[in-house]
Amino acid sequence: MSVIYDHPARRARLATLLAADGVDALLVTDLVNVRYLSGFTGSNGALLIAAGAADPADTPEAVIATDGRYTSQVADQAPDLPVVLARDTGPALVAGAGHLRRVGIEADAVTVAGLEALRAAAADVELVPLRGVVERLREVKDAGEFDQVEQACAIGDQALAALVDGGRIVPGRTERQVARDLEWAMFERGAEAVAFETIVAAGANSAVPHHRPTDTVLAAGDLVKIDFGAVAGGYHSDMTRTLVLGEPADWQREIYEIVRTAQEAGCAALTAGADLAGIDAAARSIIDDAGYGENYVHGLGHGVGLEIHEAPGIGATATGTLPCGATVTVEPGIYLPGRGGVRIEDTLVVTDTGSRSLTRTSRTLRVL
Amino acid sequence: MSVIYDHPARRARLATLLAADGVDALLVTDLVNVRYLSGFTGSNGALLIAAGAADPADTPEAVIATDGRYTSQVADQAPDLPVVLARDTGPALVAGAGHLRRVGIEADAVTVAGLEALRAAAADVELVPLRGVVERLREVKDAGEFDQVEQACAIGDQALAALVDGGRIVPGRTERQVARDLEWAMFERGAEAVAFETIVAAGANSAVPHHRPTDTVLAAGDLVKIDFGAVAGGYHSDMTRTLVLGEPADWQREIYEIVRTAQEAGCAALTAGADLAGIDAAARSIIDDAGYGENYVHGLGHGVGLEIHEAPGIGATATGTLPCGATVTVEPGIYLPGRGGVRIEDTLVVTDTGSRSLTRTSRTLRVL
Repeated sequence: MSVIYDHPARRARLATLLAADGVDALLVTDLVNVRYLSGFTGSNGALLIAAGAADPADTPEAVIATDGRYTSQVADQAPDLPVVLARDTGPALVAGAGHLRRVGIEADAVTVAGLEALRAAAADVELVPLRGVVERLREVKDAGEFDQVEQACAIGDQALAALVDGGRIVPGRTERQVARDLEWAMFERGAEAVAFETIVAAGANSAVPHHRPTDTVLAAGDLVKIDFGAVAGGYHSDMTRTLVLGEPADWQREIYEIVRTAQEAGCAALTAGADLAGIDAAARSIIDDAGYGENYVHGLGHGVGLEIHEAPGIGATATGTLPCGATVTVEPGIYLPGRGGVRIEDTLVVTDTGSRSLTRTSRTLRVL
Repeated sequence: MSVIYDHPARRARLATLLAADGVDALLVTDLVNVRYLSGFTGSNGALLIAAGAADPADTPEAVIATDGRYTSQVADQAPDLPVVLARDTGPALVAGAGHLRRVGIEADAVTVAGLEALRAAAADVELVPLRGVVERLREVKDAGEFDQVEQACAIGDQALAALVDGGRIVPGRTERQVARDLEWAMFERGAEAVAFETIVAAGANSAVPHHRPTDTVLAAGDLVKIDFGAVAGGYHSDMTRTLVLGEPADWQREIYEIVRTAQEAGCAALTAGADLAGIDAAARSIIDDAGYGENYVHGLGHGVGLEIHEAPGIGATATGTLPCGATVTVEPGIYLPGRGGVRIEDTLVVTDTGSRSLTRTSRTLRVL
C-alpha cells in the first residue's frame, strides 16, 4: 500500500513558520525531516526551503540535493522538486543560495564539522541555528499518517495475540526466543522493520525498564514485560503488555492494578490543548498516592511517527501543550528491583473529542 | 560468550594522541567510541579522558557520565571508572573540568545545539573540535575484536549456506521472503542483530547497488545479489554473493568473472602499509580495462567493526595507508541498468604477511 502525502502543503506550512523565525530559508539535513517534507527516503539528502508568504496556497521555493546513487529514486519519490546532485548535499545547497542572506540550519542535526563545511561553502550566508522547527510540524499527523500508525499498531496487536494463542509465551522458553518469535510474527504480518529492539523481560528482569532480551528462561510465577512495535510505511507503533505466568501473587496483582489505573488516567487526560506536564501528573499521582512513586522512574509517554521517539514528550518537566492530531504513547510503570515490574503502554491519537487508542490489545492482566 | 577488552590500554593510547593534538583532555560523546573506550553500552553516556604521558603503562585519568537508568549497568560494564550521574552527560563532564583549559570535542558527533550546551556549562574551558581521533585507534583491531568479527562472518556464511542448501533461493519466492529467511537464519545461529538491512535483489533489481527487498518474485535466469551481515558481541560482518537461477547467460558469466577477478586483485592488494587509493585501483583497473568502468559506481571497501562502515575507507579518492590489524571489506561490482548486476564482497583482516578472509563462502558463481 502506498500512501500519498501532500508534501507541498507541508512545505507551505514550514515556509510560514520560517518567515516568523526571521530567516530567508531553512536548510533541512535531518533525513527524517527530509522524508517528511519531500518523500525522499535515500540515505544522503538535504532540502533548501524558502520562507514564504502566509498564504498556504503558495508553494514555497524548494530544492533537494542527493548524490548520484539516488538519481532515479529522487525522481520517483520527489518528482515535484528540482534536484542538485552532489555528495556533500548541505554545502552544495547553501553554495547555490547566494541570493539568500539568512539561512536557518537544524541545530540538532548539523554537527560541528558539518557547520564548518557549510561555512566554507557559503561564506556570505549567515547560518542561523534553529531547533525543532520541522519537528513541531510533525507533531500534528494527517490522515495518511494516522492510517500508517494504526496499521503498525494492528501488526503489533496481531503478532502478540499469535504468540499468546500459540503457546509461545510459556515457562521453559527464553526471553530471546520470545522476542525473535514476536519480531518474526510482525514481519509475517507485513512489518517492514521492527520499531526498536524488542524488549522481553521475565521475572526479576521485568524490573529493568529497558532490559535487553537474554537467555533467561521464563519460569512459572514470572511477570513477563513485553515492549515492542512495528514499522509500516515508515511509521512506528509502540506498545507494552505485562503478562503473568500462572496465578499472580498478591504483590503482582497489586502493582498491576495500580499501573492499569494510572495508565487509564493518563489516557483520559489526553485532550487537545492539555498541559503536557499535567497529563503526566494525572497518571503519576496515582502511582505516587499508592506509595510507589520512587519505583516509576521515567516519563509518561512520547510522540510516535516517522521516529519511535519524537515530539511531544510527556513528562513531569515537559513544557507546552498537546496538539490535536498528535499520536503519543501512554506508558506508566512500577519497577521493584530484584522482584519484577509492570508497564502498560498504548499508542493513541489525540482527537478533537479526547483520544482514541490505536492499540487494541486488552489491558486486563493476562494470566498464561 | 563474553570477550574481555583492555579498555585502560585503549584509553592510554588515546591519551598519547591527545597530548600530540595539544589538548588537555577529550570529551567523548559518540556512543560507539564511549563503548570502545569503556565497555559501557547504554544509550546515554560520555567520557572525559585526560591527555597523558607517552608511557602506555600510565592509565590516564578518565571519568564516565550516564543517567540514573544505567546506574547498575555502568557499574557492571565500566567498574574501573568513576561515574557522574546526569541526564546531560557532556555538559556535566565539562562543568566538572574546571582544572582543564583546552578540551577536545568530537566534531563529527557534537551538534551545533550540543556545542551550545557545552559552552553554557563551562564558559572558561576552550572547546577544540577534533576529527577522527578515536576512529583512528579503532582501525587497528585487537585479538578479541578479530574473534568477534570472525564469529559474525561465520554466522553469515552458515546462514547463506542453510538457505542455499535448503532450497530457499529459488524461482517463485520473493526478495523479501529470502531476506527474512536469511535474517532469521542468522538469529538462529546466534546473531544479536543484523548488521544492516539485508539486500536481496533479483533480476533487473540486482543492478541497483543498494536495492531494498521488495515483493519482486525470483525468476529463472535471474542474477540474485545478496548483501548482508550479522552482529556478534557488537561487531559486524559484511558479505555479498551473487547467485544465478539456472544456467547463466553469456553476459552474466562475463561480468561475474570480471568482478571475481577484480575482487581477487583487491584482496591481493590488501597489505599493511599499502596506499588506500592504490588498493582501490588494483581492483578498479580490471573492471576499467574490461570496459565496464562506468558500471562500477562505488568505492572498493570500508572498515568493519563496532560499526558496519568505519575507517578506513578504500576508494579512488581515499588518502592514507592501510594499517596492519584493520578489518575491511573488498566489494567491487558491475551494474547494468535494466539487466542485472554482480557484486562479490568479503570481510578480511590485514595481517603482517598480507590478508586473510574471514568470509569463507566460495566466490565461484553458484548456479541454483
